[in-house]
Amino acid sequence: VSQSGRGSVFLLSDFGNTDEFAGVLRAVVAREAPGAPVVDLTHEIPSFDVRAGALALERLVFHLGPGVLVAVVDPGVGTHRRAVAISVSSATGPEFLVGPDNGLLSFALDALNGATAAVELQSPALPADVGGTFDGRDVFAPAGARLWAGAKLDELGTPIDPAGLVQLTRPRLDVAPGRLETEVLWVDTFGNVQLSARPADKRHARLGVRVEVVTGERRFEAVEAENFALADTLGLIGDSNGRLALVSDRRPAATVLGVKAGDVIELRDKA
Amino acid sequence: VSQSGRGSVFLLSDFGNTDEFAGVLRAVVAREAPGAPVVDLTHEIPSFDVRAGALALERLVFHLGPGVLVAVVDPGVGTHRRAVAISVSSATGPEFLVGPDNGLLSFALDALNGATAAVELQSPALPADVGGTFDGRDVFAPAGARLWAGAKLDELGTPIDPAGLVQLTRPRLDVAPGRLETEVLWVDTFGNVQLSARPADKRHARLGVRVEVVTGERRFEAVEAENFALADTLGLIGDSNGRLALVSDRRPAATVLGVKAGDVIELRDKA
Amino acid sequence: VSQSGRGSVFLLSDFGNTDEFAGVLRAVVAREAPGAPVVDLTHEIPSFDVRAGALALERLVFHLGPGVLVAVVDPGVGTHRRAVAISVSSATGPEFLVGPDNGLLSFALDALNGATAAVELQSPALPADVGGTFDGRDVFAPAGARLWAGAKLDELGTPIDPAGLVQLTRPRLDVAPGRLETEVLWVDTFGNVQLSARPADKRHARLGVRVEVVTGERRFEAVEAENFALADTLGLIGDSNGRLALVSDRRPAATVLGVKAGDVIELRDKA
Repeated sequence: VSQSGRGSVFLLSDFGNTDEFAGVLRAVVAREAPGAPVVDLTHEIPSFDVRAGALALERLVFHLGPGVLVAVVDPGVGTHRRAVAISVSSATGPEFLVGPDNGLLSFALDALNGATAAVELQSPALPADVGGTFDGRDVFAPAGARLWAGAKLDELGTPIDPAGLVQLTRPRLDVAPGRLETEVLWVDTFGNVQLSARPADKRHARLGVRVEVVTGERRFEAVEAENFALADTLGLIGDSNGRLALVSDRRPAATVLGVKAGDVIELRDKA
Repeated sequence: VSQSGRGSVFLLSDFGNTDEFAGVLRAVVAREAPGAPVVDLTHEIPSFDVRAGALALERLVFHLGPGVLVAVVDPGVGTHRRAVAISVSSATGPEFLVGPDNGLLSFALDALNGATAAVELQSPALPADVGGTFDGRDVFAPAGARLWAGAKLDELGTPIDPAGLVQLTRPRLDVAPGRLETEVLWVDTFGNVQLSARPADKRHARLGVRVEVVTGERRFEAVEAENFALADTLGLIGDSNGRLALVSDRRPAATVLGVKAGDVIELRDKA
Repeated sequence: VSQSGRGSVFLLSDFGNTDEFAGVLRAVVAREAPGAPVVDLTHEIPSFDVRAGALALERLVFHLGPGVLVAVVDPGVGTHRRAVAISVSSATGPEFLVGPDNGLLSFALDALNGATAAVELQSPALPADVGGTFDGRDVFAPAGARLWAGAKLDELGTPIDPAGLVQLTRPRLDVAPGRLETEVLWVDTFGNVQLSARPADKRHARLGVRVEVVTGERRFEAVEAENFALADTLGLIGDSNGRLALVSDRRPAATVLGVKAGDVIELRDKA
């Protein structure tokens, strides 16, 4: 297999771009798998926000080519949470996922039709007086690099039952005639508000072109739109990930609505 | 042609580094053009600021080696603005520019002596219920990847007249004996204030070593300098892009002056 | 030597990720050394903070594979400070270090057992009216690229005595029975407070499981811990760089303590 035939090493974390943490991940991959193309997906997942990381992975996993995905959002580093590597059966996407077993990978795994096998990664022997608080550097990036370079999954650790991997709760969504109760999954950098509901859910709820948006005590009106530029006040679009999103032309819809990820809002038909 | 002989795929956008948008661009290039070296120029152009993106491209385009430049600052995504790919005749720089036809590429095109040909990119067929609001992922990055991999321009879309590409207004600049009226093009991360005027304009205006800087109601004095360390209060230097810049030693000159990109200021000789 | 056999070009700077400065470094390396894998370590060293850059390099240099390290935190750009390239004798890490001679490289050099040779880099002839204020683009990145591509050190400039390279003051550390006086080296993105003292210093000072932390006028109690999740209030851990660090479970310890890099604090035994 040529090097490009092995695909990329994809990295996602909450390390931020300020410190050298993400840079060290890249350097470890370069050291352990010379020639591996490294693709930074993002390192700005909100600190310790496993759910935000899992949702980002779910959004982007369909767009990845072959390779190994290494994801690190890991508030429990150094505790007894497991470190895992997982194989999936994907025709065109990544072959392996590596990260902490805290649910971070669970939505991406669902999107990829589940794991075909999994191992618990062994912790490396660290030099004396070096703490085990940077598994991204010491465990996950090296494992990803070895898999990219051709190692078999079972060379990296002890086989475990994929059915026992930690799962996150699926986003809230309730569809009824004339109304949708839906979770805010994500507020993006432009302030667009991505919802758990999809265009098909809107059709099932038989919502029309105009909807009432109920957030806690406040109510807004949103109009079906096809893109940002047409969303005069609040627009309800089918977004680029196949979800519904509330948007506002060149303004942050999240600010208009006063909502954040995790909030639950209601959409009601406005006849 | 060897892979390195084809040069790089250069990326610039206003997607920011927080969300996974820029990461998805990188992943799409890796998937569609395995082995292509990806060079991120910046993804932190201010949101929707086409002019800031165009000015950044103008500054950096001379320093690029061969390859394909993909730029996305695109407030009109999903509307009728055209998506374009453009060829240029460059001895050493990029061969193709890809992006929205909203003026973003216009200053770089001028710097590269204009387009030799252009096509309007076809919009891809998206899966049902996936919105067309992420042309970076769906249109521009795939087109850039295909061009890097050897596709001809006319395989990507319908030929259009390069003379009809959208142009941005050139920065304001007025040179008269003893005075320069000049636009603030850019405030960089260190607070340096880049002006549209060049050292030659200063000579044509016959400004001396000391100049008066007039910003709205306020006046300052600046002294000709060669580098940041010598700019005690305000220095006027010829910057690394061949423009004049107002700088202040280890302090943000933009804060001292109270100016931002787009402001017009006047430089007057102070005999 | 194959391209991957030459290792990577590692980049570190205080240019930030907002402007295109770091992107231009990457583009220059791609242009001058086609095929060179570029590893961004970080570009978010605090502006002009040579010491912060030197400490980051010290932390990460052990984790780098072969290649060339180019580092730019350079408040004196354009003045008489020297630009240098340095060779080191490293079994597995980078072979060359490139940057300003202002101490930025000094801690990394110490970690790599010192320089085997050094040259002062020649300043390039710039086009008329282009200022010499972007040596990252004009001097350091090109030198790094040439070294990666196989140039000898003495092809790049005039040999100088490595003993004359600028050294930064070593971090403050005073160990006495029952107490440690130690400098805050770094507050990371999670608010963890890295100290100059190491676990061995704590043993030499015979500090126990509970210590008093004295910062200026205030006092805190910290408890020995092994990871972040166990640090209920304040924990004192041996961190992943082999230093002591004050941490707090999912809270920024630096905020709790009110300290920043450069502060000196005292740890006292609390029997």
